[in-house]
Amino acid sequence: MSDIYVPKPAELGYTFGGREPVRDLGPGEVRTVYTEDCFGGAVKTIDDLPTRVCQMPYLNPVTGPFYIDGAEPGDTLAVHFLDITPARDWGVSSTFPHFGALTSTHTTATLQPPLDEQVWMYPIDAAAGTVRFQARESDHTVDLPLEPMHGTVGVAPAGWQAISTITCDVHGGNLDTPELRAGTTLYLPVFVHGAMLALGDGHARQGQGEVSGVAVETAMHTTITVEVIKGASTPTPRLETSDGLLSIGCARPLEDAFRISQHDLVQWVSELTGLATLDAYQLVAQAGTAPVGNVCDPNYTMLARMPKALLRGAAAYEGAHERLRATPRPVSEVGVR
Amino acid sequence: MSDIYVPKPAELGYTFGGREPVRDLGPGEVRTVYTEDCFGGAVKTIDDLPTRVCQMPYLNPVTGPFYIDGAEPGDTLAVHFLDITPARDWGVSSTFPHFGALTSTHTTATLQPPLDEQVWMYPIDAAAGTVRFQARESDHTVDLPLEPMHGTVGVAPAGWQAISTITCDVHGGNLDTPELRAGTTLYLPVFVHGAMLALGDGHARQGQGEVSGVAVETAMHTTITVEVIKGASTPTPRLETSDGLLSIGCARPLEDAFRISQHDLVQWVSELTGLATLDAYQLVAQAGTAPVGNVCDPNYTMLARMPKALLRGAAAYEGAHERLRATPRPVSEVGVR
Amino acid sequence: MSDIYVPKPAELGYTFGGREPVRDLGPGEVRTVYTEDCFGGAVKTIDDLPTRVCQMPYLNPVTGPFYIDGAEPGDTLAVHFLDITPARDWGVSSTFPHFGALTSTHTTATLQPPLDEQVWMYPIDAAAGTVRFQARESDHTVDLPLEPMHGTVGVAPAGWQAISTITCDVHGGNLDTPELRAGTTLYLPVFVHGAMLALGDGHARQGQGEVSGVAVETAMHTTITVEVIKGASTPTPRLETSDGLLSIGCARPLEDAFRISQHDLVQWVSELTGLATLDAYQLVAQAGTAPVGNVCDPNYTMLARMPKALLRGAAAYEGAHERLRATPRPVSEVGVR
Amino acid sequence: MSDIYVPKPAELGYTFGGREPVRDLGPGEVRTVYTEDCFGGAVKTIDDLPTRVCQMPYLNPVTGPFYIDGAEPGDTLAVHFLDITPARDWGVSSTFPHFGALTSTHTTATLQPPLDEQVWMYPIDAAAGTVRFQARESDHTVDLPLEPMHGTVGVAPAGWQAISTITCDVHGGNLDTPELRAGTTLYLPVFVHGAMLALGDGHARQGQGEVSGVAVETAMHTTITVEVIKGASTPTPRLETSDGLLSIGCARPLEDAFRISQHDLVQWVSELTGLATLDAYQLVAQAGTAPVGNVCDPNYTMLARMPKALLRGAAAYEGAHERLRATPRPVSEVGVR
Repeated sequence: MSDIYVPKPAELGYTFGGREPVRDLGPGEVRTVYTEDCFGGAVKTIDDLPTRVCQMPYLNPVTGPFYIDGAEPGDTLAVHFLDITPARDWGVSSTFPHFGALTSTHTTATLQPPLDEQVWMYPIDAAAGTVRFQARESDHTVDLPLEPMHGTVGVAPAGWQAISTITCDVHGGNLDTPELRAGTTLYLPVFVHGAMLALGDGHARQGQGEVSGVAVETAMHTTITVEVIKGASTPTPRLETSDGLLSIGCARPLEDAFRISQHDLVQWVSELTGLATLDAYQLVAQAGTAPVGNVCDPNYTMLARMPKALLRGAAAYEGAHERLRATPRPVSEVGVR
Repeated sequence: MSDIYVPKPAELGYTFGGREPVRDLGPGEVRTVYTEDCFGGAVKTIDDLPTRVCQMPYLNPVTGPFYIDGAEPGDTLAVHFLDITPARDWGVSSTFPHFGALTSTHTTATLQPPLDEQVWMYPIDAAAGTVRFQARESDHTVDLPLEPMHGTVGVAPAGWQAISTITCDVHGGNLDTPELRAGTTLYLPVFVHGAMLALGDGHARQGQGEVSGVAVETAMHTTITVEVIKGASTPTPRLETSDGLLSIGCARPLEDAFRISQHDLVQWVSELTGLATLDAYQLVAQAGTAPVGNVCDPNYTMLARMPKALLRGAAAYEGAHERLRATPRPVSEVGVR
Repeated sequence: MSDIYVPKPAELGYTFGGREPVRDLGPGEVRTVYTEDCFGGAVKTIDDLPTRVCQMPYLNPVTGPFYIDGAEPGDTLAVHFLDITPARDWGVSSTFPHFGALTSTHTTATLQPPLDEQVWMYPIDAAAGTVRFQARESDHTVDLPLEPMHGTVGVAPAGWQAISTITCDVHGGNLDTPELRAGTTLYLPVFVHGAMLALGDGHARQGQGEVSGVAVETAMHTTITVEVIKGASTPTPRLETSDGLLSIGCARPLEDAFRISQHDLVQWVSELTGLATLDAYQLVAQAGTAPVGNVCDPNYTMLARMPKALLRGAAAYEGAHERLRATPRPVSEVGVR
Repeated sequence: MSDIYVPKPAELGYTFGGREPVRDLGPGEVRTVYTEDCFGGAVKTIDDLPTRVCQMPYLNPVTGPFYIDGAEPGDTLAVHFLDITPARDWGVSSTFPHFGALTSTHTTATLQPPLDEQVWMYPIDAAAGTVRFQARESDHTVDLPLEPMHGTVGVAPAGWQAISTITCDVHGGNLDTPELRAGTTLYLPVFVHGAMLALGDGHARQGQGEVSGVAVETAMHTTITVEVIKGASTPTPRLETSDGLLSIGCARPLEDAFRISQHDLVQWVSELTGLATLDAYQLVAQAGTAPVGNVCDPNYTMLARMPKALLRGAAAYEGAHERLRATPRPVSEVGVR
């Protein structure tokens, strides 16, 4: 475990953009990093109400940015997640005043008092592959599948911007989609030299929509490797898995997030297959799915997914995903799973 | 097949509400009906552009309404789909001017010309269980799974309203969700004596979101049976399958459809399990999924789904789904599958 | 006052469409009618909470429908408001659970309890031209201008629909815009023989947006006259005043109501002036205003307004507004003001 | 004119936050500055298509930031506009691909080609107080009132963010409301030491909604003075004029911009008058207006306005507006018109 990069508190970031790199990362290198949870680890018991133990804007810290050797504006950065493993045997969730889809918020502003703030602790059993929900007001307890993912992965945005890690957009960021799990490749556009990749906000699991605003938050040991695809344009974040291509739309209102994701998938399918635009639209309409990411953050996320089996062998980004998933992993790399 | 109810053209309906019943249907009866496709069967080749061969408002005809014996305002009607089988060996899809999520529409009004209107024919191979996509502008052909469903099922709405079959709302209607397949029970609130159930708009399959506005449309032979749950309230349409409970939200914008569906699921889970509201909210947030219905109709649909396995044995509507799915089916009922 | 049509309780309507006419009305006739307030007159003191004294769906009654002689599908009905005068010396407003822009609603569903239900009484001083706001919890009292208007005016919709009087759409209905005052002509498309005009929901005044969901509601004596413009198409409700043309967009989300109104105004200005579409777009962009109607009803309303002075003499609907406002009024017609 | 600060090209800013101050500005000082138009002055004829002569992200340059002496996080900055005078005798507008409310955009993504890009030149006649619209495709010409305003005024945002000058939010920024004219005081929250005030994007005039995405853009000579209100919180940008208080909501969708503005106005009125929250809600609902800002930028703006006459003498921010508008202006300050 000696190679794991564990950021010092002062190295944690709260924006994408506007920061100096903490390390270099070369294409093909395999790197394991530690990421803190969205509360910076400050919520440890049901009595640690987030609004008391956390302080704005010290929320949703990210590890990085990593300067990616050779990445230049106009390229695409492919980030492959070889492994995402909880670094603790517990996760935590909560309600948070004026945050979440079933409460009034600072933007969907109402005159009612907010919902009560409350914390739930989730024991994680890595061997069993479960996280345990324990009701606060009754004895209802159920085990849910442990499905680790990262909520927040991104690069520095365009136009000298520095954007809060709570927001997502074309640079990635707080995507909060359960599709961003181990075995997946995330494609991001590069806007600045070195791309400036950072990640955090690990979730032991998350429902589609993250309706309460907070997932099962936990620290992670995460192993990534990257590739730079020179001159390849990526209009919005994309994912590739063993059997699917996914476009991610980040926007409000939710139908715009849907439109962005579907529009990009239609264009992407058209480029990969040579299908005319309306033919690709038709194929996506009948064969596509639309996994919901988050409906709680400053920008929502919707995903549009096409099974790779329907693309008749076309390979995205010149086969980057297949190369990356075949990356040899150091024997002792994590060793905790 | 002598028992199949095939509506005469004059019996087809274009509204929920405002119409006399075409037949009675008693709880426990098994009834097979024929439903026309959304174009009234008028689009038969790629040269039959819908705007030429169809005439407003003769779109999306429904079969019914059926007067459900014993259904009264305040009850819930459970409609179980024993079988949904295409009545043809072809389906059809199209673009339609100012309709669909990736075009400007009459409400998302822009000054650009609409997308071209174009038709796609889909051969259906019932034996192989496939529908075939054939590109218009290239030789790309792929087989997609045949997954028959009904886009439109509803009852007469409240308040003496008569609502177009193109719209959905708490009375059901044009829900356009691929989750409404055989083996599923749909729960609808009853607003008028006899409920006035009608259905149509069969899809050989549909992607999540129905992004182009039109699915693989086809006529259906559909076998249903119903139960009236006296005095049970249903705030928004709900589905039950062998392993899940789903709440359906019908609204614009899309986040409101999401909110309605998640809000109803939280309340439903809370009632069934005795979980406190915030505990149910938490469980839904971590364990729920959010299958997208349509993002093209006058009201969009989002679904919120909870696995029944997490409810520790609680049975919705006093076990109606289990009773209905066990309904004995007449031997010769359809016989075409 | 003998000529005033006062509907009997059983004659009041709660839908546009689906009803028989109560009277005929010929083009050029001047007719004074009585309209009830949105609560059917049942809220008379601050102790009459609407949810206790009113019963769904007996809300927002309209007077009519009037069968307009000569109106046929495809025509436009011009309704001119010669006078709108409160029929009482008091109006009433309230909060209403799950209704209004600053509370959670049945569609913007949250898990919080709704805002408290509370009633405000407004003395109307017709001579002074004021309505008086009196705070409930303090001694703050201010006089606001009496600016009578109708919230709800519409015709039978297309496609055999019957739509609640709480909703607005292309057929008019619950537009809830303060621009619909005396001296104004409302243009509505005709969908059925006789058009079936109905009106109600008088407001002694209303702020833009009707943010709390309820205006200063009162019964009205309203004098109208109508003209049928044969073969003239009206894509969405429009208003004409002495100095402006206004298009009304009815939709959710609010940006779609905005888009519809602006889109229609661009097209209307282009037709009237011969400006190319992009030129008309440009002129509307720099010279137009966007008066907000309601942001609380099932469909919101936004208006787009162009000063007539910029149209270089072009007359809408062949000068219908000028003809209608010049209609001679019977001497004793109302006589109460 | 020696006192006018004219930024060198390298001093222009494209973000709020992330930049060093260009000058100090003390409370009570009167400062005249030059601001470039949103195209950086590059669009000078109808042949200068913005996408050809401008380069992302060099759009919407701002002058500043100015370090405001004494401004600290938690304070409110009051910026009073003593004068806004076009620095040229012409303005310019255009359509811009994928920008504006009546076209598809990068977020409201459709598969149609964008609207044509086209430029309009507007002669400004300062003596007559007009800007002249000249149609491109016909001879239609009309004079519109010259009503100079600033589209973009803001401070550095919270949380180390640097936000594009094309966006608005609680820090101000690209508000694009015609209410921001001379004689008005803008209140902004202070997030960093010195506040870091910057401004630009002058409009010779603008319609409500800025529906085409671009106003009558021109360079400005603008004279401001500021006051720091210690310890005063400002949840969202606010305006004060001689007769009204206005709260500005910045968000998508548009109803959230509306909600934020109305919610803030209700709270503000309640604080100033001692009215209970529901009483203030009621007063705003009946007496308020809702001037539309922009419905085209990354965040839309809606304003909520209350006449000061209804507040029975309550003074906002301890009378800052009255003090600021009484600021003596240097005799020769502008003198260029």
